[in-house]
Amino acid sequence: MTDIFTLDQIKASLKDIDTIKAIEQGFVAYSQKKAVIPPIGEMIFEKPPGDVHIKYGYIIGDDYYVIKIAAGFYENTKLNIPTDSGLMLVFKQKTGELACILLDEGHLTNLRTAAAGAVVAKYFAPKSVQRIGIFGAGTQGRMQLEHLKPIVDCKDVIVWGLSQEELDVYKMDMEFLGFSIQTTMNSEDIASSCNLIVTATPSKSPLLRADQIRKGTHITAMGSDTPEKNELEPGILRAADIVVADSISQCRSRGEISVALKAGLIEEKDILELGNAILDEKLQRTSEDQVTVADLTGVAVQDIQISKAVYKTLAQNK
Amino acid sequence: MTDIFTLDQIKASLKDIDTIKAIEQGFVAYSQKKAVIPPIGEMIFEKPPGDVHIKYGYIIGDDYYVIKIAAGFYENTKLNIPTDSGLMLVFKQKTGELACILLDEGHLTNLRTAAAGAVVAKYFAPKSVQRIGIFGAGTQGRMQLEHLKPIVDCKDVIVWGLSQEELDVYKMDMEFLGFSIQTTMNSEDIASSCNLIVTATPSKSPLLRADQIRKGTHITAMGSDTPEKNELEPGILRAADIVVADSISQCRSRGEISVALKAGLIEEKDILELGNAILDEKLQRTSEDQVTVADLTGVAVQDIQISKAVYKTLAQNK
Repeated sequence: MTDIFTLDQIKASLKDIDTIKAIEQGFVAYSQKKAVIPPIGEMIFEKPPGDVHIKYGYIIGDDYYVIKIAAGFYENTKLNIPTDSGLMLVFKQKTGELACILLDEGHLTNLRTAAAGAVVAKYFAPKSVQRIGIFGAGTQGRMQLEHLKPIVDCKDVIVWGLSQEELDVYKMDMEFLGFSIQTTMNSEDIASSCNLIVTATPSKSPLLRADQIRKGTHITAMGSDTPEKNELEPGILRAADIVVADSISQCRSRGEISVALKAGLIEEKDILELGNAILDEKLQRTSEDQVTVADLTGVAVQDIQISKAVYKTLAQNK
Repeated sequence: MTDIFTLDQIKASLKDIDTIKAIEQGFVAYSQKKAVIPPIGEMIFEKPPGDVHIKYGYIIGDDYYVIKIAAGFYENTKLNIPTDSGLMLVFKQKTGELACILLDEGHLTNLRTAAAGAVVAKYFAPKSVQRIGIFGAGTQGRMQLEHLKPIVDCKDVIVWGLSQEELDVYKMDMEFLGFSIQTTMNSEDIASSCNLIVTATPSKSPLLRADQIRKGTHITAMGSDTPEKNELEPGILRAADIVVADSISQCRSRGEISVALKAGLIEEKDILELGNAILDEKLQRTSEDQVTVADLTGVAVQDIQISKAVYKTLAQNK
């Protein structure tokens, strides 16, 4: 019988897993062309609006391949059920047998996304972070900050959101985790005081302008994963010293980089791929003055890495 | 907690399901453009050789959408494990929630394929079937014949296979089900005595020639589902009075029709789509003399229909 693990079991396994390391290794395999990632499968529903994505692939010569199914149905809030759902399926690469089903309800996607933010900060955040700025007080706004904890030695944070109520809850939750949180609904407050900024919103119009960005700032933009979403004025990418993508091929059509490419403000040759930067110190931040921007659109190799790590841990502890 | 059903549970549910009807309704929805079937997802492995296919989609306005994952790893026989595996996932179309996981190990794919053969026979087999000819003594060779039982009033069968041993087992199994079985390793014996022929082999070179086909014969070719496989000399399709495809768009690149199209022996306008023929009597067989050929490549709408029917039955009986 196939192993089937629930969200509670999956969450319990995570304390034994170095997710940041697993994701980092995934990006390296990806940039070294060792990962086979077919095009994303997609279904779009209109009434009620919803989208389903199938992300899948494998690392060549690895033990497993992984298929992830993720759904977002935004009117579920009316029914008091979560908007996002999902599961991951792990199969044996030598036989095609189903190894396990991870009923993670989308949690592992959130986790691997947050871990990517930490990987980026490890190589591109300035050595001395004065203050962390977070755009978005939702799940990723929380998880990105949590994942910066082992990477960045700064607990002083300002968070931007659309409602004071949401911000108050965020402040309470994150101060419980040891951060000192200021809140704001004015985006100017972020750029003026932070040199490590994470944007984690579904915004379709820019939250930050090029003229706001100070020397030495690093920005991780992870909210935009479709051609429509856009969190940064594209001039920010033109002005940046380093622009890094989780996947250059995906960033051609999705995320902040796609907007800047289409506007002719940057060229593809100006873009670094994260896995290559991890391997080569010269491609990482080399001075405290550089402005660096990372665009994360989410790559299936992250799903592969996190689900494998969870499965191996759960199988061992059975 | 998600409902997860095993192969035994799924098999037990099938006695309460009219699979032929479910598949027939699926083809109608498909030809009426009510089914949304995105391109098939695919992963190909080399060492050991294996392929994985993800078929998915939904009928517009229906309660569910379905994702099927099927794998074939042909060297599994060396390990004494089945070459084919698979599962189907049923999700709620209104919320994206996972409704159930059907761990059918590929059985429902076999079943929906066999049921499609029955649907074709219902509309295209001659009224008076003298003898049924089956190419292939494997799983589909068995299931196609079983599914003809409620449709065709003929129990006299001749089966072609590559080894006498395999044919002897087939004969024993199918006579137990009430058929009278002759066996042959000479394909001439089929065309000369049968007016309902089903080809269910993975052959890459034709098993039947155009000059062998007698007036009034119907052929269902279901073995070829890739661009390489080919069971019928393409001249058979040129000579046929009716050529019917489960999916015209899929048959452009897969199966018997693709071979005949590429050879310039037929044109796309000469091809009927099964769902349209079901709805319009004039498109079905209209005389006992016609030669008709149906090419089945397998359409995700069949997976949608069978998995929905199984889930509904299992959910009711819980």
